[in-house]
Amino acid sequence: MIYDFDEIIDRAGTNSLTYDGWKAYLFPNDPDLNIPYADHELIRLWVADMAFSSPPPVLDAIRARLDQKILGYSKIYDSHYGEVLQRWFAANYDWNINTEELVSAPGIVTALYRLVPLLAKADEQVLITTPSYGPFKKAGDQSGREVLCSSLLKNGGRYEMDFADIKQQIMNPANRIRIFILCHPYNPTGRVWTVDELTELGKLCLANDVWIISDEVHSDLLRAGQKHVPIAALFPDSDRIITCSAASKSFNLAGNMLSHVFIKHTAMRTQWKRLYNDYHSPLSIVATQAAYEHGAEWLKQLNQYIDNNLNFLKELITEHLPKAHFSIPEATYLAWIDLSDYVPQRKEIARWSVFFAQNAGVLIEDEAVFVSNAAGHIRINVACPRNILHEALVRMAKALNH
Amino acid sequence: MIYDFDEIIDRAGTNSLTYDGWKAYLFPNDPDLNIPYADHELIRLWVADMAFSSPPPVLDAIRARLDQKILGYSKIYDSHYGEVLQRWFAANYDWNINTEELVSAPGIVTALYRLVPLLAKADEQVLITTPSYGPFKKAGDQSGREVLCSSLLKNGGRYEMDFADIKQQIMNPANRIRIFILCHPYNPTGRVWTVDELTELGKLCLANDVWIISDEVHSDLLRAGQKHVPIAALFPDSDRIITCSAASKSFNLAGNMLSHVFIKHTAMRTQWKRLYNDYHSPLSIVATQAAYEHGAEWLKQLNQYIDNNLNFLKELITEHLPKAHFSIPEATYLAWIDLSDYVPQRKEIARWSVFFAQNAGVLIEDEAVFVSNAAGHIRINVACPRNILHEALVRMAKALNH
Repeated sequence: MIYDFDEIIDRAGTNSLTYDGWKAYLFPNDPDLNIPYADHELIRLWVADMAFSSPPPVLDAIRARLDQKILGYSKIYDSHYGEVLQRWFAANYDWNINTEELVSAPGIVTALYRLVPLLAKADEQVLITTPSYGPFKKAGDQSGREVLCSSLLKNGGRYEMDFADIKQQIMNPANRIRIFILCHPYNPTGRVWTVDELTELGKLCLANDVWIISDEVHSDLLRAGQKHVPIAALFPDSDRIITCSAASKSFNLAGNMLSHVFIKHTAMRTQWKRLYNDYHSPLSIVATQAAYEHGAEWLKQLNQYIDNNLNFLKELITEHLPKAHFSIPEATYLAWIDLSDYVPQRKEIARWSVFFAQNAGVLIEDEAVFVSNAAGHIRINVACPRNILHEALVRMAKALNH
Repeated sequence: MIYDFDEIIDRAGTNSLTYDGWKAYLFPNDPDLNIPYADHELIRLWVADMAFSSPPPVLDAIRARLDQKILGYSKIYDSHYGEVLQRWFAANYDWNINTEELVSAPGIVTALYRLVPLLAKADEQVLITTPSYGPFKKAGDQSGREVLCSSLLKNGGRYEMDFADIKQQIMNPANRIRIFILCHPYNPTGRVWTVDELTELGKLCLANDVWIISDEVHSDLLRAGQKHVPIAALFPDSDRIITCSAASKSFNLAGNMLSHVFIKHTAMRTQWKRLYNDYHSPLSIVATQAAYEHGAEWLKQLNQYIDNNLNFLKELITEHLPKAHFSIPEATYLAWIDLSDYVPQRKEIARWSVFFAQNAGVLIEDEAVFVSNAAGHIRINVACPRNILHEALVRMAKALNH
């Protein structure tokens, strides 16, 4: 079956964060910000869900579950669920998961909020790299654990970890770093960390009693030629690596509120289960199972479409925004674009997201959303019909070149 | 439309807690317990969801939302949602809610777990009445807040609060009670607290700087002639009463993972919003809205069916279990039955739930689930087709009279 990613789907009236919640999320401190565009005129290329239909086989699985009529208390009980997950992880990442290690959560961010105080004492610290997805920092803030940052280094268009800095911070006797939160593949820069990089990081952390929480939610959204290797798969003898995964990004099911957390460490997993006893929507459970069981072909076509969108974006940027710096990411549907060279001529622009919202009617995320090391950058979500992406870029370029 | 509550719906393979999760829930410390019944032979009258279809208008609303195709990040944005809620609360409880005070949570138990540490300092205490729904105590345990208990007094078949004891505990200078968790209507005894009782409790708590968290999840499941009055409606000038409500029990949507919490106190609500930023399944949002907008007739017929089931149960008990004491509850679909008079002749029975599971193939809840003040009692969920209820009682009576 050929899936239609060009279809334009109206999200008005669907309780959608990207459609209805952008102002509170992007501009929380400026509720009166004037955006001279009507709701239906705005193009939303911000939060990381997609403007495409969730996979038809998933929607069909939910419909079939509705025919079973009762939507009572539910958990993952179907033994087939674990088998489906095992097959997916083996086929896609060469990783043989042990479903005994699996716990569920209503989201990876929630899992992070729970894991940080489980793994780190109140006076211990969390290390993240920047630019960082905001909730990585909030996961420490929430429980009063200090969050330290190591800036990624930009080598050409490629972001790399600063291992010397990470090592220095971990070894520094003034610090008490107990957790490293890894984002793999990386949001917002789109890196797929190599085996060498993951090995170096893993050895460094594990040798120094630092847990690794690896958020691998983008692991299926790989650009052509890329391969995802879970960091836990490289250290099969360690129980200090916790892997967070979900069908939410891959299959446009962020509304599922169902994520997978692999906790190999027995005592920590027992502790989690003692504290948290999540129920889930029975519709989300069958949706997730159907995605991994029947969604491979849809995902393949999706990734081809995103590859093409990113190539198209690259051309648009070269043509319309010649001072922008953009490398096609190795994973994700997120374009991380450096607009710094436009700053000198447009010093009046305080926030790129405000500028493009007001002057182009395009909603994107800017440095304010990504903790630090993001000056002058914007993130554009390209998981939308190509026509819309085109229109957005034309409008943004027109505003910027005005 | 006449809804069919006699329909027998197979819950095998639906990831249902009541069908698949009973052993871990009811007998957590005895995983090897031998129950000589096959899965399909067991009758499940335990956890509080219903063996009836969720309301057809709700299932249809979910189907319509699936036709909108995208299941991304979602919150309650539809302004109509609040209007529907306002109408429901006004029509059913004469309570004019202010939707500004509304926050959402993935469940009332989760809300309790969050609220207790928000409202009480580490050395302050929570007061509950017993027999109590287990998670009320766990809400204190989870955050290290001590939970004190006041036993309900049984006056004939009617459970009443021991106001003298509650007052003594609140006023006792050795205590530091900061929260009273009210269950209204009451699980497991089925009381609908009267305006006089609520007024006395409210005055006592509010005069002594004790917050009231009122779990009103059973407020729609009223037996004939009963009326639900939210305690917050009696104290419109106080901002120290937090009301928890949901469509989950009323409309058999426990799998929705969406509850409503009314926090009038501005600073506390701000604090909640700072700490918690819940997304919800877009399917759960439309389900909840549809339940309150289009579910009234279904609910009316449901309550009639439950009234009849409870009358039927009363007859069955009189006939088959003459030593049992049972009064039809004022609310809920839960029958709270005193089997104490059977104890002397059956001293070998350690737990009623084990006894009925092993000897009748019927799963019910016993005193072990309800904190304390529940000796000799069992709770039977009668929200099932009458034939099943009949079969269960016959099997239980046969086992007990053996």
